Amino acid sequence: MSDKKDIKVLRHSAAHLAAQAISQLYSGTLLTIGPATEEGFFYDVLPKHNFKEDDLVAIEQRMHELADKNIPLTHREISKDEARVLYKDNPFKLELINEIPGDAVGLAEQGDFYDLCRGGHVASTGDIKHFKLLAISGSYWRADRSKQALQRISGTAFFSQKELDDFLTRREELQKYDHRRLGKQLDYFSFHEEGVGFPFFHPKGKRILNTLVAYMRNLHEEHHYQEISTPILLSDELWRRSGHYAHYKDNMYFTLLDGQSYAIKPMNCPGSILIYKQRPRSYRELPLKLAEFGHVHRHELSGVLHGLMRVRAFTQDDAHIYCTIDQLEEQIGIILGIAYKVLKKCDFTTINLALSTKPVNAMGSDKLWDRAIESLHTALKSFGHPYKVQEGEGAFYGPKIEIVIKDAMGREWQCGTVQVDFFQSENFDLKYVTAQGTHERPVIIHQAIYGSLERFFAILLEHFKGHLPFWLAPVQMRILTITDNQKEYAHTILNKLKKYGFRVELDQSSEQISAKIKSAQEDKIPWMLVIGQKEVDNNTVSIRYADGKQELGIALEKALEKAQELNQL
Amino acid sequence: MSDKKDIKVLRHSAAHLAAQAISQLYSGTLLTIGPATEEGFFYDVLPKHNFKEDDLVAIEQRMHELADKNIPLTHREISKDEARVLYKDNPFKLELINEIPGDAVGLAEQGDFYDLCRGGHVASTGDIKHFKLLAISGSYWRADRSKQALQRISGTAFFSQKELDDFLTRREELQKYDHRRLGKQLDYFSFHEEGVGFPFFHPKGKRILNTLVAYMRNLHEEHHYQEISTPILLSDELWRRSGHYAHYKDNMYFTLLDGQSYAIKPMNCPGSILIYKQRPRSYRELPLKLAEFGHVHRHELSGVLHGLMRVRAFTQDDAHIYCTIDQLEEQIGIILGIAYKVLKKCDFTTINLALSTKPVNAMGSDKLWDRAIESLHTALKSFGHPYKVQEGEGAFYGPKIEIVIKDAMGREWQCGTVQVDFFQSENFDLKYVTAQGTHERPVIIHQAIYGSLERFFAILLEHFKGHLPFWLAPVQMRILTITDNQKEYAHTILNKLKKYGFRVELDQSSEQISAKIKSAQEDKIPWMLVIGQKEVDNNTVSIRYADGKQELGIALEKALEKAQELNQL
Repeated sequence: MSDKKDIKVLRHSAAHLAAQAISQLYSGTLLTIGPATEEGFFYDVLPKHNFKEDDLVAIEQRMHELADKNIPLTHREISKDEARVLYKDNPFKLELINEIPGDAVGLAEQGDFYDLCRGGHVASTGDIKHFKLLAISGSYWRADRSKQALQRISGTAFFSQKELDDFLTRREELQKYDHRRLGKQLDYFSFHEEGVGFPFFHPKGKRILNTLVAYMRNLHEEHHYQEISTPILLSDELWRRSGHYAHYKDNMYFTLLDGQSYAIKPMNCPGSILIYKQRPRSYRELPLKLAEFGHVHRHELSGVLHGLMRVRAFTQDDAHIYCTIDQLEEQIGIILGIAYKVLKKCDFTTINLALSTKPVNAMGSDKLWDRAIESLHTALKSFGHPYKVQEGEGAFYGPKIEIVIKDAMGREWQCGTVQVDFFQSENFDLKYVTAQGTHERPVIIHQAIYGSLERFFAILLEHFKGHLPFWLAPVQMRILTITDNQKEYAHTILNKLKKYGFRVELDQSSEQISAKIKSAQEDKIPWMLVIGQKEVDNNTVSIRYADGKQELGIALEKALEKAQELNQL
Repeated sequence: MSDKKDIKVLRHSAAHLAAQAISQLYSGTLLTIGPATEEGFFYDVLPKHNFKEDDLVAIEQRMHELADKNIPLTHREISKDEARVLYKDNPFKLELINEIPGDAVGLAEQGDFYDLCRGGHVASTGDIKHFKLLAISGSYWRADRSKQALQRISGTAFFSQKELDDFLTRREELQKYDHRRLGKQLDYFSFHEEGVGFPFFHPKGKRILNTLVAYMRNLHEEHHYQEISTPILLSDELWRRSGHYAHYKDNMYFTLLDGQSYAIKPMNCPGSILIYKQRPRSYRELPLKLAEFGHVHRHELSGVLHGLMRVRAFTQDDAHIYCTIDQLEEQIGIILGIAYKVLKKCDFTTINLALSTKPVNAMGSDKLWDRAIESLHTALKSFGHPYKVQEGEGAFYGPKIEIVIKDAMGREWQCGTVQVDFFQSENFDLKYVTAQGTHERPVIIHQAIYGSLERFFAILLEHFKGHLPFWLAPVQMRILTITDNQKEYAHTILNKLKKYGFRVELDQSSEQISAKIKSAQEDKIPWMLVIGQKEVDNNTVSIRYADGKQELGIALEKALEKAQELNQL
């Protein structure tokens, strides 16, 4: 295996190789820059005629020919004046030459091809064996839309064919199971130019969201959280007090109401705090655990929007726990328990925990911090899973625990956060009356497990490659009859399953059973209940699972039992 | 019974009587205006020293004395100059005199008291027998906050003591069961100055809303509605196209997003329509019934805000049915069925239906209108309940059916609407592909049963006088142990009931049973499960209902069965 430094050298060399091939095949193409990236390399060029996808084949072919020739790569320093002569017809390179400090610039050479370069190459083109051109796309000089539009040739290179093949397989998979693609294909959601960054959930997508909410509500109920709801619009005054106005204003949307400026809430905390503050609270009420499926709006630049992963409005499974410092440890333990339960239910096997401790600019007394961090350590230890400590990486207002999951394609996602907060309690002058009749400040824990429901939905869709588990699938079962003779029995089953609360459909079409199965597979339905005359006669069903496995002639009651077990929230 | 005209004369005369009493008791008080109102009368005055509640007693006492004297009331015309002399020290009356057209003004006299007046009085103060002063409140000259602050003395008068008594009883009841008062008392919701007109739902209030949503979702499910969700923010462009911008702009809130103006949605239709339009639709999909619990914002003047009855943000149980004109009749029948089911479940016994037909400015062909109205008539007739026809009162874009309920206190509320819409389908160029492969426009039905969930919640709270029925109560049962010896059994019952999904609590206090019962009554909990040693020994519970009735020693399983029956959604 190669280390990171080597692979960058290889990929940068591959970019030179691509540029050499382009220069030979399409003379007059102006080269600009060609760096290595995390996943490969690219070269941005200004061609005489725009390149098309097909041209990649010819370029790649020429790259292989040049590699086969095993041309040595050399590097030397030349004076800027010399360089300006070489690049007299290329304004991009001239601009780069002017920007390089000192009087000399580097020049890489391979055969009669040369390129302005700081250096760091393989010894010979023969060392670049395992590469692939991947895409042609639009770009801008200096990544600035107001400057010259260019074309970007992207590719990748590895030290072994296996690594390259693995990369290509994974890449194909990521594209195939991109949630935006699946969302459209399965009719789950859409985006419209009338609301850029705001998802529209179609019936099946909304069912999935509702199931995620229902599941979390069950967990909330079990652990004595109480659900509230607070307004979407709240006055600037409140956001100034909470600090969001000073620190988060650029990501907030504002509107006027009776001449007063209101913000569309980017977070749910201030609303929850107003409910806490609305009447005196006793120590008997603590821990007071107020949950809200709060719909928040946060501005994102249009360039970074990405399906449901990055939107401008989303729903948080938010909870604020108002408790005493003594209750911190137990509450953290409960939250970790809920988080693990949720993540395991969603088939995430790798879950990493990190505790961030007191930063330099911390507010609140050392005693409070020490006490809180000790509680978090104790809670984490008794929870029994390993965790790492990120010294000094906590927020200024309290320590936190991050929960990071790894999905089926090896990508890491931070979903859950448990943030201890000493600040807002002080800031909003929150109190509770102690058993002795004195007043104390509660500590606040900000809790989110899914984080954003929309983003979690997207992560699940990709993690499961579209095949959501039975409990979450918008249509859990579809009944397929082999002929119309089984219609009556099929309706009986349909109604029975519906009565039990299952999300079930009956394929009413007059297609062949093979076509019905294909359609159910395309819709990624976990269970197909195939009904032929045998099933009618014996009061059974045959279950065909999404993975093609089958169980024939299962007694209806037994199938129902199995489904109920899978459907437990 | 008296007719409306008479009662106004009586009440206006009572206002004069109040003014006479005030003038005698508090000389130097400046009188302004004293009209009759729908429910009584008021007089706005500028006193030398502010009146207090207690002063009403003295004023009312003097009014009775003046009434007993049976002083004749007379009315004559005097010149404006003469009037200006009489009111030389009262700038309010002088302003009124100047505004009256012509040279003369009316003067009412009773004894040595006179008042500027257009006329219309009873013959003598003795005719004003059955009256009551009700309140003292703040007001402004000309109801204009920038003008002189005044005090308003309000009262009412009737022709009989019985009418007055009935009015006072009803008034007391309305005040006692005002949802704003109950909402605070029962800890259901609150309002905060940080969000004027936007309700904050506390845990119990949110439970009630969630139950209303769950119940409607069940009905939607049963009748093949599919739930969607659409964004809160949508571009002005869309609202211009939908016509809301032109007709409803003043009630909408706007925000800027990437330099483009977006509106916070006041209605859910355009979002639903974008989902309909998002891909081609086939006749096989119709009727397509897209439901949304859509959170909408509509500006209201701060003066008309009224608890949850009139807010600036609320959730609609909205549905849009895209169907063919042939399907209209059946769909209307289904909607009426759902509406009646909901309203009967909420114990509304008087439900009135009204069909509004084609107005003068109607759009769409006569043929379409005739067809639609015929369908509505047929649906209404086969539904079998009487309905009235409001000729020409439909919207320009289609006929509608209004559903009006009468609550326990005799007040009428319009909740449900069924609006047929020919316009938006045309406007947004909606289509479906027919069996023949041609393109047709669907008709849209806008449906809302609760209307606003928040308003419906408030209506129910007042209708039930705070005693929400078992299925809707945020806490359905509370377990009360007579001594601590029953704690273990109480916990067993608690867990069992929770497992069955009931909203149940255990009173953990060490109070006497009588105090526990009182507290449960104050919290308006439908069932108190009283547990003594007998209940433990026999595995039973004693149920004490909110109305004080009791069932002693019911087998736990039987109580559970009964509760499950009541809890059906």
